[in-house]
Amino acid sequence: MIVELISVGTEILLGNIVNTNAAYLSEKCAGLGLSCYFQTVVGDNEERLTQVLKTAVGRSDIIILSGGLGPTEDDLTKETVAKFCHKKLISNPMWRKHIEDYFAKKNMTPTENNWKQAMLPEGALVLDNPNGTAPGMILETKSCRIILLPGPPSELIPLFESGVRPYLEQLTDGALYSQTVKLCGVSESAVETKIKDLIDAQTNPTIATYAKTGEVHLRVTASGVDAKEAKKLTKPLVKELKSRFETELYTTEEDVTLEKAVIDMLAANGMTLTCAESCTGGMLAARLVNVPGCSDVFKSCTVTYSNKAKRKLLGVKKSTLQKYGAVSAKTAEEMVKGAVFTSKCDTAVSVTGLAGPDGGTKEKPVGLVYIGCNVKGTITVEEYHFSGNRSKIRESATAAALALLRRCLLVYIGKTSFGKN
Amino acid sequence: MIVELISVGTEILLGNIVNTNAAYLSEKCAGLGLSCYFQTVVGDNEERLTQVLKTAVGRSDIIILSGGLGPTEDDLTKETVAKFCHKKLISNPMWRKHIEDYFAKKNMTPTENNWKQAMLPEGALVLDNPNGTAPGMILETKSCRIILLPGPPSELIPLFESGVRPYLEQLTDGALYSQTVKLCGVSESAVETKIKDLIDAQTNPTIATYAKTGEVHLRVTASGVDAKEAKKLTKPLVKELKSRFETELYTTEEDVTLEKAVIDMLAANGMTLTCAESCTGGMLAARLVNVPGCSDVFKSCTVTYSNKAKRKLLGVKKSTLQKYGAVSAKTAEEMVKGAVFTSKCDTAVSVTGLAGPDGGTKEKPVGLVYIGCNVKGTITVEEYHFSGNRSKIRESATAAALALLRRCLLVYIGKTSFGKN
Repeated sequence: MIVELISVGTEILLGNIVNTNAAYLSEKCAGLGLSCYFQTVVGDNEERLTQVLKTAVGRSDIIILSGGLGPTEDDLTKETVAKFCHKKLISNPMWRKHIEDYFAKKNMTPTENNWKQAMLPEGALVLDNPNGTAPGMILETKSCRIILLPGPPSELIPLFESGVRPYLEQLTDGALYSQTVKLCGVSESAVETKIKDLIDAQTNPTIATYAKTGEVHLRVTASGVDAKEAKKLTKPLVKELKSRFETELYTTEEDVTLEKAVIDMLAANGMTLTCAESCTGGMLAARLVNVPGCSDVFKSCTVTYSNKAKRKLLGVKKSTLQKYGAVSAKTAEEMVKGAVFTSKCDTAVSVTGLAGPDGGTKEKPVGLVYIGCNVKGTITVEEYHFSGNRSKIRESATAAALALLRRCLLVYIGKTSFGKN
Repeated sequence: MIVELISVGTEILLGNIVNTNAAYLSEKCAGLGLSCYFQTVVGDNEERLTQVLKTAVGRSDIIILSGGLGPTEDDLTKETVAKFCHKKLISNPMWRKHIEDYFAKKNMTPTENNWKQAMLPEGALVLDNPNGTAPGMILETKSCRIILLPGPPSELIPLFESGVRPYLEQLTDGALYSQTVKLCGVSESAVETKIKDLIDAQTNPTIATYAKTGEVHLRVTASGVDAKEAKKLTKPLVKELKSRFETELYTTEEDVTLEKAVIDMLAANGMTLTCAESCTGGMLAARLVNVPGCSDVFKSCTVTYSNKAKRKLLGVKKSTLQKYGAVSAKTAEEMVKGAVFTSKCDTAVSVTGLAGPDGGTKEKPVGLVYIGCNVKGTITVEEYHFSGNRSKIRESATAAALALLRRCLLVYIGKTSFGKN
């Protein structure tokens, strides 16, 4: 079955708000095995909304509209859809009561325009909305099912879960299963080259690649008669990917981030971590602290942006800074040594580089970054060349630092050697 | 002129990513006086993309497509648009060179599929993309202008600013002038209440409000026969806003961020800055380091996530941590005292709080954050209650820390008093 999303709201077209409802609904529909081929955003305008509805009805089985159900004159989604389906709007006594009760609970009186929200298309299935004054509605026509939801996410999300999900579940037969495979320390094109044969041969399951900063995510999706069969169908391909990306694959869990994988690895080995950052300026620490409960592992970070701070807080030698410069392998090495010495942590990561836009030279161009790792005294320093603007370089360096730490940990616990990479 | 956005990417249809590009492009186009009536999202699928293109060409003057310009087989936006416009793809030697250089800088070799990105539609205007391997492209047909941009925001945004904006500006006649007014340390509803009379009376210029994390941006837009007249029309309203938000207004420059405003203020007063972060875990430092050339002002930061680190690196007393806890006004005060003592900087900011999701109690709920400022020995500590998930709370705390530091600096240099706020 094909689902299509129509978001109604001039505020989206003006860029005042980001359309998070579409992302939410898309993800939920994909999880229910519905194919979504189109999302459209249109303003609070009868003519243009009708035009979009016409197009959608011709190509999709289910249309989910969000927004434009409010009490003001601008809001005309319900009126437009009713007209489009040749349905009258009639006063719904049950919903009038809901509006009365809703306002009574807040010690408020409904204004005249609130009663507009109790005028519902005849024959519509009404979905309760405890968090607002507009109900969800489902209209079934010969060729299509049209679902209307209020725009505020605090109303839309609970309404989807309580009313729309059960409705959609009983419509869909067959099932879809998606498995995420996340890789780090490898480029998208290198991944593509390494799995070209699998992509060329794909039917069911399929593979999609997603480039992220410093990471590549793969999504393996299969369809089957039920969820169990679909899941089973993804397994051989996921196994193949695991063997091809033995070192780079850090998780197959949707909600595990690279920083979480690193924190978990350190926790599993009873190790603690500190960081010493220059050009990333706290980004690496901030990513590690994204992980709830990281405090057993992540202890501290020193952002030593000035040379003085590098010397004072990390014990980087004056002679090193003079001879090799702040952006050098030697400085990265001393930063990571000093960080472990000061913090008494088991592991440390250091980052020093040129994020630009100024300060680059021919010998040391903008984008040059040194990353150091200290795992129980074994020090590794690598040189990187990142491109992009200042923030892109810093984000790339942060992701590379996590990937390098992970690789050094794999070596330490004997799961890989550098040569293999 | 009517602009229409088409976002290409199966990952958007699957809900894997939120379509922030559409919000960005919509806001920028609105600022240029272009009307946007439709946004569409379509997958990496030739047939469906062609269908969407056909619809868009019939109703809009300018179409901006984003996404699907990568090197992989999925990516087919350029191929589909070229076919749609009856243009051949031909190898572009200049862009081949760009790809070569891009990889050389990273000490990497392009893989075979990267060369696909140098195949460009004949007659296309090529827009340079220093942050990636796909160029922006503009194709002009009889009825429509089609603009292609790469999907990653780190590439799309700079490319829009450098290549697309100037192109669009010379297309639009009459002139529109937009002036941004950025406020911090004030809520959106407080702003709206304070300028309700101005909003109700608006005709030309108009005012639009945009809520950002910890900030509110206002956009004053006027239209005139030429840019000079339009600019002149915005002036009285901007002046009025300046007087109504004397303390909260930190800039009227589009490209000045809150962190830049703070760094500039410190630089103008010859002051240096250090930070001491707990729950924000480096986010504050990372924002300060966003500012190129911040090194004259920003010297260091200690992320003291553990109590041990708070004691060792900042000299927070054991008795303070025992009696008041790590999340307390007293700890924030000692952190900011210790930070100045250790770093010998003129100013320091500290942040300690509960970002959740766990660890909250009735007395100290998730979202409770203490922020301390030390400006040449004058210490201010404030208590905040933020809502949202872990990252929202940390982002709000980071923005609040910048706003508080700015306010303390204003007091120090005698431009305001706390009472006035």
